[in-house]
Amino acid sequence: MIPSPYFLYLGHSNDEIGIKTSRGLAVFRREDCVGEFRHDDCGLTLGLPRMSFAEAIAAGARTLVLGIANAGGRLGEDLVRDALAALDAGLNIASGLHQRLRDEPRLVAAAKAKGLTLFDVRDPAPDLPVGDGKRRAGKRLLTVGTDCSVGKMYTTLLLARALQARGVPADFRATGQTGILIAGDGVPLDAVVADFISGAIEHLSPARHDDGWDLIEGQGSLFHPSFAGVSTGLLHGAQPDALVLCHDPDRPHMRGLPHYQLPGLTECLEANLRTARLTNPDVRAVGIALNTAKLTPEAATRLCAETADAFGLPCVDPVRMGVEPIIDWMRTCEPSAPAATASR
Amino acid sequence: MIPSPYFLYLGHSNDEIGIKTSRGLAVFRREDCVGEFRHDDCGLTLGLPRMSFAEAIAAGARTLVLGIANAGGRLGEDLVRDALAALDAGLNIASGLHQRLRDEPRLVAAAKAKGLTLFDVRDPAPDLPVGDGKRRAGKRLLTVGTDCSVGKMYTTLLLARALQARGVPADFRATGQTGILIAGDGVPLDAVVADFISGAIEHLSPARHDDGWDLIEGQGSLFHPSFAGVSTGLLHGAQPDALVLCHDPDRPHMRGLPHYQLPGLTECLEANLRTARLTNPDVRAVGIALNTAKLTPEAATRLCAETADAFGLPCVDPVRMGVEPIIDWMRTCEPSAPAATASR
Repeated sequence: MIPSPYFLYLGHSNDEIGIKTSRGLAVFRREDCVGEFRHDDCGLTLGLPRMSFAEAIAAGARTLVLGIANAGGRLGEDLVRDALAALDAGLNIASGLHQRLRDEPRLVAAAKAKGLTLFDVRDPAPDLPVGDGKRRAGKRLLTVGTDCSVGKMYTTLLLARALQARGVPADFRATGQTGILIAGDGVPLDAVVADFISGAIEHLSPARHDDGWDLIEGQGSLFHPSFAGVSTGLLHGAQPDALVLCHDPDRPHMRGLPHYQLPGLTECLEANLRTARLTNPDVRAVGIALNTAKLTPEAATRLCAETADAFGLPCVDPVRMGVEPIIDWMRTCEPSAPAATASR
Repeated sequence: MIPSPYFLYLGHSNDEIGIKTSRGLAVFRREDCVGEFRHDDCGLTLGLPRMSFAEAIAAGARTLVLGIANAGGRLGEDLVRDALAALDAGLNIASGLHQRLRDEPRLVAAAKAKGLTLFDVRDPAPDLPVGDGKRRAGKRLLTVGTDCSVGKMYTTLLLARALQARGVPADFRATGQTGILIAGDGVPLDAVVADFISGAIEHLSPARHDDGWDLIEGQGSLFHPSFAGVSTGLLHGAQPDALVLCHDPDRPHMRGLPHYQLPGLTECLEANLRTARLTNPDVRAVGIALNTAKLTPEAATRLCAETADAFGLPCVDPVRMGVEPIIDWMRTCEPSAPAATASR
């Protein structure tokens, strides 16, 4: 596996969403992160000590995590230059970008010369199956969203931890590069070949017989013109018993697409339930998670209360308020008998 | 490109749908096909002369097309053995299977020894873009289906030829291995990495300014639990002005999934229109194509007439009856101004 402690890369980023992988590790694996690397024009911080590559090595870091995202996931010249400097200082490199470290000959040569390793987290396992849609034992929750990057991973991780804290068997199932780096395992769904999307999720979340839950990290949105195919296959492969709808009320338009507005919550929830029913007719919504980071505490509380009233579902900001109301609701409406065989 | 004439492989197949690539070439590129290869236990024929590999070479064949399909697209031991014999006789090999010829060392070695070439039709172009959902100039028709293998490619090819026969600029845009072998170009959509599904179609069918039509070959079905992600991304990338719904009234269950029934035509058409509206709010249905191969001519005519009445749309079996009624309908409801900029 990827050697820790980690040194987290921010580079030249000034887009909070663009550094979500580095941020995710800083939040959920903080004890394994020694510092952050940023250039002078980077206006963001994870609240970790800013270090050079040499200082990171001296502080015990073993791997530089290129925890930044951009549309298409390309490895730009800036990134290559910084990665070469990190290798030179003695750090392994991990990346979740679509474009692979191993496809850049300069990085391959430098890693080889220094006896270091390049980790491409977005390499799916070979031999994923085609999905078959057969019902399998166990309970599954999937987070879905009005858009990309609206809090699906945070919500899923916090739900898993909250269930575990109550003594309920629960596993976070990662489907994106940040989740995989946090969990140490998972399926990089957006890098899977299209015919195997639902099969990859069936493989990620197999039958379970311990009365516990799989908490599956959602991806994209049925309403995102770039990525809705991924979201559709994920819904079908997950066969969720429960959906949690995630939304950022401050988002002005679909991520990366100024010409597309976000869908309404009602429209979005209905579309997700309709799509999910193909492989699990008993799917139901169990909560709404809002990212209220830009609101005052009072406004956030009011918005969640209003949304809860409107939908008849628990609504929280998981980071600010925790997820207990959603857990309570999930537990009261759990299927009484384990869903095992037959389907439509 | 792939050297013709072709020699078409049927192998041990006894499943008509499993030989659809060989059959498609025999129908749409018949002048380029010298014969068919089948073992004694193969109960199917394309109506071409049955030959050995040596006889095919003597008849002028240059390439053996492994035109068979199976779930997962694996290259079994039977297939490898036959391909080795074909190489030994002097034939190049073309394959549309997921598992690549170039990943089988015995085939690579044999091809190299004989100076022959292995063609993997399912290799997508590198550097496909992420879809952006921006409206582009030109008119587009997409075929959609209640299931896989219900006649989408045939319908699309026949629509393209019928438009061309009327002097309308029209291009068939292939999205599957058979269509690509027929057209000589296209995107093997089910082999594209999931994040790039809609972008691949935007790339395949760029803006056109000649008042002509792109006829885009559909894939899968929104109601197929294995492949609906592909169908969703295809709908979004195509931004279709017009949909033609394809259906096989004889299909007992979803292809490969005995535990899933086919959707109703109304439900299926509504779901496709709803999904397509995300990137083209003006999309409309322009026809229904039924595969009536198992019906008597009278029963086929009656079913098409009843379906046309029920939906208020032209309904034909394209192979038996031609597609003229659909072309007439398409032409009467074409957008008057070229759809170019803005969106929702």
